[in-house]
Amino acid sequence: MPPDKNKLLIISTNAEKYLAIFRDHNLPDLQISATADSAEALDLCSHSNIIFGDPDLIKPLLNHAAKLEWMQSTWAGVEPLLGPTCRTDYLLTGVKGIFGPLISEYVLCHMLVHEKKVIERYESQKSLRWNDMKPGTLRGKSVGIMGVGSIGADIARSAKHFGMITNGYTRKDSSCRYIDTYFHEGRFDKFVTQLEYLVCVLPNTPSTSNLIDWPVFKAMPKNAVLINVGRGSTIDESSLVKALWEGEIAGAVLDVFKEEPLPPEHSLWGAPNITITSHTAGPTFPEGVAPVFIRNYLKFIRQESLDYLIDFKRQY
Amino acid sequence: MPPDKNKLLIISTNAEKYLAIFRDHNLPDLQISATADSAEALDLCSHSNIIFGDPDLIKPLLNHAAKLEWMQSTWAGVEPLLGPTCRTDYLLTGVKGIFGPLISEYVLCHMLVHEKKVIERYESQKSLRWNDMKPGTLRGKSVGIMGVGSIGADIARSAKHFGMITNGYTRKDSSCRYIDTYFHEGRFDKFVTQLEYLVCVLPNTPSTSNLIDWPVFKAMPKNAVLINVGRGSTIDESSLVKALWEGEIAGAVLDVFKEEPLPPEHSLWGAPNITITSHTAGPTFPEGVAPVFIRNYLKFIRQESLDYLIDFKRQY
Repeated sequence: MPPDKNKLLIISTNAEKYLAIFRDHNLPDLQISATADSAEALDLCSHSNIIFGDPDLIKPLLNHAAKLEWMQSTWAGVEPLLGPTCRTDYLLTGVKGIFGPLISEYVLCHMLVHEKKVIERYESQKSLRWNDMKPGTLRGKSVGIMGVGSIGADIARSAKHFGMITNGYTRKDSSCRYIDTYFHEGRFDKFVTQLEYLVCVLPNTPSTSNLIDWPVFKAMPKNAVLINVGRGSTIDESSLVKALWEGEIAGAVLDVFKEEPLPPEHSLWGAPNITITSHTAGPTFPEGVAPVFIRNYLKFIRQESLDYLIDFKRQY
Repeated sequence: MPPDKNKLLIISTNAEKYLAIFRDHNLPDLQISATADSAEALDLCSHSNIIFGDPDLIKPLLNHAAKLEWMQSTWAGVEPLLGPTCRTDYLLTGVKGIFGPLISEYVLCHMLVHEKKVIERYESQKSLRWNDMKPGTLRGKSVGIMGVGSIGADIARSAKHFGMITNGYTRKDSSCRYIDTYFHEGRFDKFVTQLEYLVCVLPNTPSTSNLIDWPVFKAMPKNAVLINVGRGSTIDESSLVKALWEGEIAGAVLDVFKEEPLPPEHSLWGAPNITITSHTAGPTFPEGVAPVFIRNYLKFIRQESLDYLIDFKRQY
């Protein structure tokens, strides 16, 4: 084996699947090891200049990967690898473009479930009761999307498909053509008062921590529903529980939490009008993620700049 | 009042709402009475040359409306007014174009509920159980749409939005650009074997009666889900119950039934993997239906041909 050959370690719960896909592609100058086991990975990582895998499994290896040049995450979010004590002397790339359609399905699903009263009807059906309570429609309703990156843009596109009014909240960007009206920093108060659905797609950064707190719930219309598909850190969870009990908002659909799995004793479980979906909105499909690595690997060996590079300072 | 003035009777559960909308529009040469009461309508109808309303409420008046020239239904389907014993000496118009987006929301809602395992997760949540069972996606799945009129076309458009493969079953027509592959009469067997979702949007006619029967359920893939938003008469209900119990198909979402409300003792209630939505998929919103009447009335007084005329022979 020539000494300049790249050495890739795959460390993922889907390691076998990724290995098979990468082998099928005959990637040039690449020697691959793959494991789903952390202990085994610890032995292998010291020789690898490239790591591909699940950030939670990679985290304990990070300081042992002496030759690491580039790490490709299988997740959109890479929080386990960020923070003041984490090394930053390598290229870290995330995944974009594949979670948008999936998360958009999730968001539209839960907005439609709310409009069509699916759960109420399910409960009626159990008691053999014909329930012809009139459903609502998404047409003409407003959705406020916090964070309009590739995922937020896809949610906006689906919302427009169903005739909704779309508002976007971003720092500065206003480039998505599926957003009817943009709100930027300083106009957050205004943004949260004009919506029937508030969809959070924000990454976990110091500036988004507990951004959705009690004053926000007070400002939101009482018929509004919160949907969080970003990160659990964005929501002040105890204020949300209070807001649901006091009817400040009409419901919440949460996919992400400060602590996961959400502990059984957590007060969110018992809050009214809450839907808890256990971090399943944007599942990783190896068939979707593998092409991101393959494209980036071909760029890596040509010394081109990689797609979806994480900025360690901005943390996304 | 000049004798040539048109006399409209509104007979609908939403009579007051329609009356207010039509009055706001100051329709020319039109005298309007409105009621939600059948007995009162019986008195009023003999003077009316135009009736606008709900077909079930109009049915008992039909033979008493001696001066009837035109009847505009508030429903898409007009079955109560069709049949060998019903009069056909007047213009009968239905409603199109407004139910498509609503029924499309309903169909996408229930396909997404199935993919995202909303009901299973709801049950897990009740027992405080974190359920991160992987969801499915609509992307790449096949939907077969039976009946590709304005409603079927809108369902196809939404299915394409989510990256589905769309097959359409029609008598002859193949004009909808959102249908990837058309199947026509004689190829029904083929049509039902290639889908994950079978969506029925068929009207109630002799040729659609019990069209979805035991051999169809046997031919459908075992992972397929039936969604019926057309008419209850299309489904052989006892075969459906058997197919669900025996796992011939994965589920059924039914909005319409041979008898409505579905009687509490009906075997459909207890069938596994069934969702019963009590004829709510295409609710009538007066704000949507009123403009259809208004446009047609302006055509009527100009003696132009009316939109959405029902062909009494074809029964739709």
